[in-house]
Order: sequence, then structure tokens, then C-alpha cells
Amino acid sequence: MEALIIHAPGDLRVETYETPPVGPGQLQVKVSAGGICGSDLHYFHHGGFGTVRIQEPMVLGHEVAGTITVVGEGASGFKAGDRIAISPSRPCGQCRYCQEGLQNHCLDMRYYGSAMRNPHVQGAFRQELVIEAWQAHKLADHVSDEEGAMVEPLSVALHAVRRAGALMGKRVLVTGCGPIGALAVVAARRAGAREIVATDMGDFALRKALQVGADQVINVAEDPQALQAYSADKGHFDVLFECSGNEKALRGALDALRPRGIIVQVGLGGEMTLPINAIAAKELELRGTFRFHEEFAIGVDLLNKGLVDLKPLISASLPYRDATRAFKLASDRSQAMKVLLNFN
Amino acid sequence: MEALIIHAPGDLRVETYETPPVGPGQLQVKVSAGGICGSDLHYFHHGGFGTVRIQEPMVLGHEVAGTITVVGEGASGFKAGDRIAISPSRPCGQCRYCQEGLQNHCLDMRYYGSAMRNPHVQGAFRQELVIEAWQAHKLADHVSDEEGAMVEPLSVALHAVRRAGALMGKRVLVTGCGPIGALAVVAARRAGAREIVATDMGDFALRKALQVGADQVINVAEDPQALQAYSADKGHFDVLFECSGNEKALRGALDALRPRGIIVQVGLGGEMTLPINAIAAKELELRGTFRFHEEFAIGVDLLNKGLVDLKPLISASLPYRDATRAFKLASDRSQAMKVLLNFN
Amino acid sequence: MEALIIHAPGDLRVETYETPPVGPGQLQVKVSAGGICGSDLHYFHHGGFGTVRIQEPMVLGHEVAGTITVVGEGASGFKAGDRIAISPSRPCGQCRYCQEGLQNHCLDMRYYGSAMRNPHVQGAFRQELVIEAWQAHKLADHVSDEEGAMVEPLSVALHAVRRAGALMGKRVLVTGCGPIGALAVVAARRAGAREIVATDMGDFALRKALQVGADQVINVAEDPQALQAYSADKGHFDVLFECSGNEKALRGALDALRPRGIIVQVGLGGEMTLPINAIAAKELELRGTFRFHEEFAIGVDLLNKGLVDLKPLISASLPYRDATRAFKLASDRSQAMKVLLNFN
Amino acid sequence: MEALIIHAPGDLRVETYETPPVGPGQLQVKVSAGGICGSDLHYFHHGGFGTVRIQEPMVLGHEVAGTITVVGEGASGFKAGDRIAISPSRPCGQCRYCQEGLQNHCLDMRYYGSAMRNPHVQGAFRQELVIEAWQAHKLADHVSDEEGAMVEPLSVALHAVRRAGALMGKRVLVTGCGPIGALAVVAARRAGAREIVATDMGDFALRKALQVGADQVINVAEDPQALQAYSADKGHFDVLFECSGNEKALRGALDALRPRGIIVQVGLGGEMTLPINAIAAKELELRGTFRFHEEFAIGVDLLNKGLVDLKPLISASLPYRDATRAFKLASDRSQAMKVLLNFN
Repeated sequence: MEALIIHAPGDLRVETYETPPVGPGQLQVKVSAGGICGSDLHYFHHGGFGTVRIQEPMVLGHEVAGTITVVGEGASGFKAGDRIAISPSRPCGQCRYCQEGLQNHCLDMRYYGSAMRNPHVQGAFRQELVIEAWQAHKLADHVSDEEGAMVEPLSVALHAVRRAGALMGKRVLVTGCGPIGALAVVAARRAGAREIVATDMGDFALRKALQVGADQVINVAEDPQALQAYSADKGHFDVLFECSGNEKALRGALDALRPRGIIVQVGLGGEMTLPINAIAAKELELRGTFRFHEEFAIGVDLLNKGLVDLKPLISASLPYRDATRAFKLASDRSQAMKVLLNFN
Repeated sequence: MEALIIHAPGDLRVETYETPPVGPGQLQVKVSAGGICGSDLHYFHHGGFGTVRIQEPMVLGHEVAGTITVVGEGASGFKAGDRIAISPSRPCGQCRYCQEGLQNHCLDMRYYGSAMRNPHVQGAFRQELVIEAWQAHKLADHVSDEEGAMVEPLSVALHAVRRAGALMGKRVLVTGCGPIGALAVVAARRAGAREIVATDMGDFALRKALQVGADQVINVAEDPQALQAYSADKGHFDVLFECSGNEKALRGALDALRPRGIIVQVGLGGEMTLPINAIAAKELELRGTFRFHEEFAIGVDLLNKGLVDLKPLISASLPYRDATRAFKLASDRSQAMKVLLNFN
Repeated sequence: MEALIIHAPGDLRVETYETPPVGPGQLQVKVSAGGICGSDLHYFHHGGFGTVRIQEPMVLGHEVAGTITVVGEGASGFKAGDRIAISPSRPCGQCRYCQEGLQNHCLDMRYYGSAMRNPHVQGAFRQELVIEAWQAHKLADHVSDEEGAMVEPLSVALHAVRRAGALMGKRVLVTGCGPIGALAVVAARRAGAREIVATDMGDFALRKALQVGADQVINVAEDPQALQAYSADKGHFDVLFECSGNEKALRGALDALRPRGIIVQVGLGGEMTLPINAIAAKELELRGTFRFHEEFAIGVDLLNKGLVDLKPLISASLPYRDATRAFKLASDRSQAMKVLLNFN
Repeated sequence: MEALIIHAPGDLRVETYETPPVGPGQLQVKVSAGGICGSDLHYFHHGGFGTVRIQEPMVLGHEVAGTITVVGEGASGFKAGDRIAISPSRPCGQCRYCQEGLQNHCLDMRYYGSAMRNPHVQGAFRQELVIEAWQAHKLADHVSDEEGAMVEPLSVALHAVRRAGALMGKRVLVTGCGPIGALAVVAARRAGAREIVATDMGDFALRKALQVGADQVINVAEDPQALQAYSADKGHFDVLFECSGNEKALRGALDALRPRGIIVQVGLGGEMTLPINAIAAKELELRGTFRFHEEFAIGVDLLNKGLVDLKPLISASLPYRDATRAFKLASDRSQAMKVLLNFN
């Protein structure tokens, strides 16, 4: 079979890769769709992010769906032909954090397509994959493989939303409407938000945010002071999902947050200089969020039941052999939200 | 003008009633629609509930919508002709609970149509009402007056849902699908529940529960053991909204709740005998819920934005002069969910 | 070696028992002190409780401390001669609840001296015990073995206190001052309670409650209406630890709890008939509590640092060969709080 | 009478000041002790802090205790001669935040000795004060006036501790052991912390932290890498109280915090540059804290019951006429913790 392997910045190759045997409790899967994530783009453009760098060739990808081809011994509940979304998260189950139910902080995590440990954990952009049965989640007939591949970023957004606590009746601001920001709009709306305002620097992203449920959008490149309208009486929003990773976005939102407002920091953005006095005096809460755990199964359920609609966020699906073109398209925020690879 | 006044069990009269003058900060409203609540039915059939009894003639009703006719001095933000839902809840704002943000526990509450204090607080089933401007919440054009009158019971359900904490991704059981139970289905779905199973003794109520969002319904009169299917591995549901006020319903659901499961007791049902050991050993949480406060404004927002659909729950709208017929229809669970009175 | 084995109600025998070999990661321990728990008394007097009955001879006991005699391969951090408290709780680590950090709800729990599963889990009232190293917690020099044996019930109280949420500044009521109730006083005081009132039917227990930190005690046998003094303005206490398992105690406390008050149900008491309307209307929360998990290690830390003083609760320590006498003394609430067995 | 009035940086004068009449519900108080706070020092040295500057002469001081001399009409529960701690916090009770129980975010707060609004709110460093009765909290006989004046900063620490959620069994780090940091040690210990490590740049402060309950102290000026010992397995501490307002202190503690660790930002320190990726990836929570509300009454209760001991933190008490000397002493962290003024 073939896989998409990153060798160095800009050097992404389609190469032959071996399919491992199917062990007990495992499934062999024919991968059909794979979504390109921001971290894939970072590996592609820069060879990594922060202190993480590729040290050896690595199969990219962790947002995938496919069809089961072989069912290993004891992998009950599945049969060949089942269409599934595949969770890329493989915590150890034994460490102190796994035993506390914090699997996303596992001390021995093996997450597809990540150079955070050495040797790297090989990714899922390949034609065939052998997985543990507990990574597989069946898709309903009306859900496409492309939507199935969207479950992973949806899970990230669902986890972020759960980090904010109950949203029923809350006023929500989302800064940064890339795929994760747009999915935060979807998830916050599903969780009962009373009002959702979304900001971005680009109109394409904002149109998508409106399509998936935002009440109002603001282009902060065109109108940098627009959020000031929300600062009367110490602020308006109960919750901010900061999805841009941009210091200016976070700073610019502080006055619009009411006392005790919650900031869920979703975007990764290196160092930020923040007015700590303002955070202290308004008793704001800045909460990190990282990946997900049980939200993957939740995301599949919501999708299968038609309780979320991710189709507006799928911009294009290209053959995996056109990966370089696909990665370039995915990097263009003026015309692409989520770009998928087709492995059929 | 005329009002609907209860004098004794079964003795509900249409009588002339005086409209008070409009003071500063107040609004005069022409009432159009009024929903009949379970407590109205209790006054009608039994003259009260629990230890509460009518001691003097009392105007019934607390679920109303209408049109502003006169705007008092300083009642800014409103104009004659505005269509509004009216909150019947008037906390004092000064007592210890109001100062803690627990207005629903106000020590000096004046709630429309309630015999809990003497003299009774007169209700809102009348052609004209003078209210404080902060009781008024504008309805969007696409929202009917009947839907507006549904905001009050919706608020009760929203408050119950908020008492359960975050529901995103949770498995929910609703026992008892009268108007409040059905609205709990609406609210839990809106709040992100992953699965909603509803039970009742009657098929009419269960059909309505399905219409407003339940995934599955169970007629426990026909199949009393059906919930046992959810008791494997110490239980299945994260949250129970017990809306029947029936001891059997609550007891029958305990095995289906997982450890740390939350029971929100919405239904009022007098004494209940409960297996306390089971509650202790599974670390269940039984939480009361009572009325609402800020949920009224939230309910109007959700309705105005089309985020909830209450129309399937409106069974009939009758002229207020046919009140006795309307009250009888509202008492028939085999054919009526919410019955409204038309005051035009 | 010898062990204390229950054969039938009232039939408690000292019998020879074999010490198993010490495996990797294990420790052999010479047991020195063992506390008699309410469940031990239930097995002794009634052969069980609720639906749990002894089906075969079972070593009793789960509150023990001792000295390490043999250190198994790889049981790092321990050496022969270390004095330790021993956690009797052995969750599987693999089931869904263990993986959520809810080990006290483990689907495959093996808890010392419990007839809840068959074959029963043999207990710790024996001269020698082989344990997993993670069950062992070292005692400071100033802590006696008897105090070490008190860590288990302390852990139950600490878990109950943590179930109540933050107690700093809260007003606390404790109903029932047996060993667990008295330890709830200790734990609530340690957790920052602003006021602690304790009730019981007996003066001996109440004196002990005062000794370990209660501000005030009430003998409800002598003054059944005393709690009414706390019912003004909808109630006074923020939290109730109901440790009696007695319906009257719980019912009698409801009026003294303020709206949103939390009841932690610690005592096990079969069926209780409760005024559900009162619980709903005041939005009380009745929370179960069951055993403990990480609180065992916390209890040892608090004891080692002198942050709790359990000595006033140790009523007597008798030789294990006088077990029947010890069990009878432990059953007499007028003169005994915790009674320990001495295995030296 | 005389008052301590700041005119400009370094220009602190003892001047005659008029006592207002005593209205209904009010008390006249002879002030005895007043603690010098960090904000008083900022006014003294710099004329303000952040964007806040003195625009007119202002009486300083907000940490005071004294004796009631005149009881206004209707101020029930008090009599002349009662010794009291005085809360300097006077929220409006009417605004949206007061009505939510967030009085510390009152939109119309009048806090003693603050230049945040114009005209400034005059402070409490004067011989006589007329207060609302609800500002007064009686001191037990064994509590000195100096300790009574410490209730205000204790309340700040108690509020900070409550912002962290339940501390029972938690591992706590305190960075910065000025008066508020030392009081955070007191409050965290009282709230059940299992372990408390405190850091500072000076040995005097660290000795005090040990005296009031820290388990261990670290002089980070001498050993800047000491906290790295706590970074294994993603970190050790559950909660950080950052009381220094120093960017280095906060940054240096991040590795020592475990995933989901909570940072309560108590110190005010202007702009800080933070590694947002680390906060996001470990899902840390940075929570602001600001003043207090009900914690003042709690602080008095804890003090009256001997549940906290603040005496080790009182460094000196000087006559108010020596205010300049007292302010200089209070500014010397190598020999002073809390310095008080004596108004007798």
C-alpha cells in the first residue's frame, strides 16, 4: 500500500508502506478520507512547531475514516464492510493520568502522526491501517466518509466546549474561525449557547462561521475596535473560545468579557504578553484545552443523529496523490476551511 | 376588563376586574395568550396542593404573553405595540437570597397566581395587566403569542437542565412526559445531550416527546421492566430528569443510572420512599429544582432565534370564556399537552 | 498464623490461616492493630446487611496497620521494619470506572473482608498479610499503629467531605456521631468549616464530637425540636453530613438546611420516606458517598503532619483473642467509639 | 479628630478631619488599629498604581478595627463598647453583579481609601469612623484589635482560596510570601491542603511562611532551579497561589504544576509574557481573584474560634503620628510582614 510521508519541510512523498498483521482485538481498515490538520500543515511547511521537529520520515495524518476489511480475533461488534471513524488517540490506560480519567494527559500517549516522541508515532494518511477495535466508531449510512474524518477536529472542539462548563444560556465569543474555531461555533451552539459572536481576519472564514451557527461575525482586520461595543458594564460575554493563537485576539477580547468570564485557550500561539491585572481584577479564568478523550464517541453520536452538520466546513476532497496541491489549498484561508484527501 | 377567578374547587368564574394605573417603570399590557399550568389545574380541581389552599378569590395564571398598550414613564426600550412574553416572577431584590443570585428562593417573592402567601398574589389570566418593565421580554415576529406564553414552562425546564450541570455528551433519561417533561426533552437536547430516553404511562405524551427530540420512548405502563435493559455494569444514564413526581418512576430509574449519576427532581409528588443505600453506594445525586430566574430571558432568546421549537407541544387554544372546558381538556393527558386560553 | 473468621452470626473464631507467598511488587506485613467497623459488627450480629450475607467462612476486618517483614521483588520504596497503614481497597484498574478515576465504583473491586462477591474477599484481621506495595502507606514515628488503623474510616470521612465540595466558610451539620460521624467532624473542621453542629441520641458520642472539633452538640433524644432554631429564613446550614442512616435524622434536618443546601448521605439505612417536595422546592442536593480512593493517602499525610488528631476517638485496644468481647464493647455506643484489636 | 491623608507621593500628613453625623442603621466607631496594605504603600511611594492616580487629597487605609462609641437608630445587635473588625467594602446591592452575588464586581463599589473613582472614596486611617452596621463584625475577647485589623487581608486570602475550589487533600504551591502570600498559606492549610510549599526571594518572609503552616520553603533567589524537582511526570502541584505579581515566579512554576492544575493569580503585576502553549497543553487554569465579599464574616469567625492564628504575621504597631516611619518599615520586606498603626 501507499502512505504520505513527510521527510523535510516541503518534502512530502507518496511511498510504499507495509501493512502490519492483524492481531487479536484489532481491525484492518481501508482508509478512505483523511482531513489535513493545522499540525500537518506545520510539519509540511516548517518541519514541526514549537520545540517539536521531525527527526525521521513520518507518515502524516490523524483525521481519518474508512471501511473495515479484516476483523481480528475477539474484536466483537464489528464486521468487514462497516464504515468507521478512527480515533487517533491511544493512551496507555495504566499511568496516573489514565487512572484519573485524564487520558489526554497520558504519560505514554501514542497519537497518530506526531513527532512529539521518538521514534515518532506514524500517522494515518495511508491506504491501510491496523487499529485497536476501541479506536473504531461506526458511522450511520447518511454520514459520508469525509464527515467521518471530521470527527477528530470536532472532538477537539467538543472537548474545548466541555472545558468551559455548562453553556446553556451563555453568551459566547469565538476568536479565530479556522476549522477548530468554526467547529467551536458548532459545538457551542449544540451545547445551548444563547448568543455566539465570531471574529476573524478573513471574510471566507466568517461566512463559514455564520453558516454553521454564529449569530454575528466581525472582521477584526476591517474593524479592529468592533468588540469595544461589548465592554459596557464590565463586559458582555460569559465565555471566550480563543481559537486563533494570536495575542492580539486574546488581548482585544478581555474588555468584552464580563467578570468571572471563562477563556478557553484552544489556539496554540507561543508566547503571549497579557495584562494580568485585568485578568485578576475581573476574576477571569483562562483554561487550557488539549485534544480530547471520550468526546470522539460523542462526536460520532452527534453526527450519526444529525445533531451537528459539518458539511459546510468541507471545502474540498483531493486524491492523496495530489497531496502537495491539497496541502497548499489547505493553507489558503481565503478559500479553504477543511481540505480532505481521498485514499480510494 | 375581565379576569378568570377561582373561588373554590371547580368554581372558576369570569369576572370584572379593575386595571391598576400605570406607574413609572411600568407597562400596561393587553394579554393575548395564557397557558394552563399543572398548578392552575390543582387550584381548579382541589383548591390547592400540599399545604397550600386558596383562602380568598384569586385570579389564576402565570404563563402569559401579550401586547404593550401603555408605556409608563422611564420604561425605556419599549413602545406600544410590542409583543412580549411576561415573566410572572417578582423577587424582592433585597433579601439574602436575592443578594446571592438565588432569586427563585427570595424570602419575599410575589409570583403570579399563587396562594402560597396571604393575601394571595393575584394571577395573570386577565385581559389587561400592569407589569414592571423588567418583566417584559420582546418576541420576534415569527414567534406567536401562544409560543410566547410557553416561555414560562420552558424556563422551568431550562432551569432544571442547568441544575444538572453541563449536558454536552451526556446520556439523559426523562421520566414523565407532561408539559414540563416534554420541555425537559427540548432543553436537554438543546443543551447537547447525546442520548435522550423518555418514559411515561401514556402514548400521547410519548409521541410528543419523540416529536420534540427524544431518541427513544418507553411506555412503562405497558412494559414496566424496560428500563432494566439499561442496568448492566451499574447503569447507563448520566442524568435523570424525574418529571412525574411519582415514587415508582424514581425508584424504577435508579438501577439505570450509572455511579455519580445526577437526578434532577422536577416533579412534585409528596412523600417518596427511597432505597437510600442504593443512592449512597452509587454516589447518586438527587437535586431539587424550583422555578427559574434568568432562564426566562434565555428562553425568549432561544425561541426568537429558532433554537427551540415548542409548537408541537401546543394542543389547543380556547377562548378564556370557555375556561372550564379548557381546564378539563388540559386535565386529559390522553389528548392534551399544553392548553392555552385566548384573551383576545 | 491466626486469623479472626466469622462462620455465622455470633460465631467468630480464632483459627489458623496460611500466609501466602510474597510475589513481585508485594509486601509481607505483620499486622499489629485492626479497627472494628460497623460492617464487621453487622457480620458479627446479623451475618451481613441488606442483601449481603456470608455464604462461607470469611476473615473479617479492613482497618489495619502493621510492620513490613518481607519486601517482594521490585516493591521499591519500602524496607522491612517500615510501619504502615494498609488500604483494603483493591480496584481492578481496567474497568470503565477505574479508567474514569472512579475506582470506588470498580466493577471488579476486591475489598478486604467483604461478602459482596462470591467467593468472599477474605479480610485483614490476621497476624500476617501479603499486600500489593501500592496498598502500603508509611506512618510517621509519632503516629501509633492504632492511629494508623484509623486511616481507613478517616478516608471514608474525607471522601464524604470531598463529595460536599469546598467547605471553607461553610456551616455544617452532622447527624449521628458514631465513628464515621465523629470523623466527619474532624474532616469538615480540617476542610475549613466555619461552624459545625453535631447531633446524636447519646451523650458519650456527643462528648467525643465536641472533643474533635464540633462547635456545638445537640442530644436529639432529649431535645427533638432543637434543630428548629435553625429554620428561620429558609434554613441555616450549607451542608449536612447524615451519618446516622436514620430517616428521622434526615427528615428532621431538612428545615435547618438553607436553599441549595447539600446533604451528603454517609449512613446506610435502608428505605427512607422523604418529603420530596421540600427537597425540590429548596433545591437541596442529596449526594451519596461510598468508601474512598485517593483519600487513603491523604489521610496518612494529614495524620503524619499532625493536621488531624484521631486519638480521642480510640476507645480501647483489646487482644485479638478477646475478639468477641471487643466486638461487644464496640457495639455499645454508650461507652465506645472505635475499638481496636491488637494482633501482637 | 485626625486622619492620615496622602497629598502626593511621599507627602502623607496627619490632618484634622470632620466626623460625620450618625444616621439610622449606622455606627460611630473609635478606630484603634489599622494595617498598612500594599496599595497604601503604592499611594505613598508612587501616588497610585497602574492607571490609578490620586487626583485629590485622600485619607488612606482600609484594614481597620475599633470600638463602637455611638449606635444609630435601628442598628440592632450592637452596643457601645463592642470591639469590631470593619469591612471596607460597600457594594451598591442593586447592580447586575450585586444581584448575582458577585458584590466584589459591583458597578458602584465604594471601597475605603481607593482612588479608582472620582471623587475618591476616603479611607479609614482616622480616629473616628461612621459605618453602616453591616460593615461591623464583633471580635471575641481573646482577639486583639491588631488581629481584627488583619481580617481584611485574611479575607482576600480566603477569597483566593475559595476561588481555587476544594483544597482538601490538594498539593499547594505559594509563590511570594508577603502578607497576602503568608495569609494564603494560612487559608490553604485551614482549607485542608495536604502539602504546602512556599517560595520567596527573602528569608524573613519564608520564615514567617513556615511559622504559619508551610511544610517547606524555597528561597528562589538562592536556588532558582529548586522547583524543577517537582516537574517529573508532568508536574506535582494541584494549585498555585501566585502572590508575587512577578512574571518569573509564574513562569517558573508552570512545570511544577500537574495537568489541570489551577493557578490563582493573587498578585497584581502588570503585563506578563506567558507560554500559552504550555498552559493550553497541560490544560492549566489561570483564575483571577479580586478582594472578597462574604469572606470577611468568615474570617472573623475563624479568628474568633481560634481556627487561624495571625499573630506571627504582625511585625509592629506604631502610633499613627509616626505614619511615615511606619510606611517605611512596612516597605522593608527584610524585616516586616504586616505593620499596623495605632490610633489610640
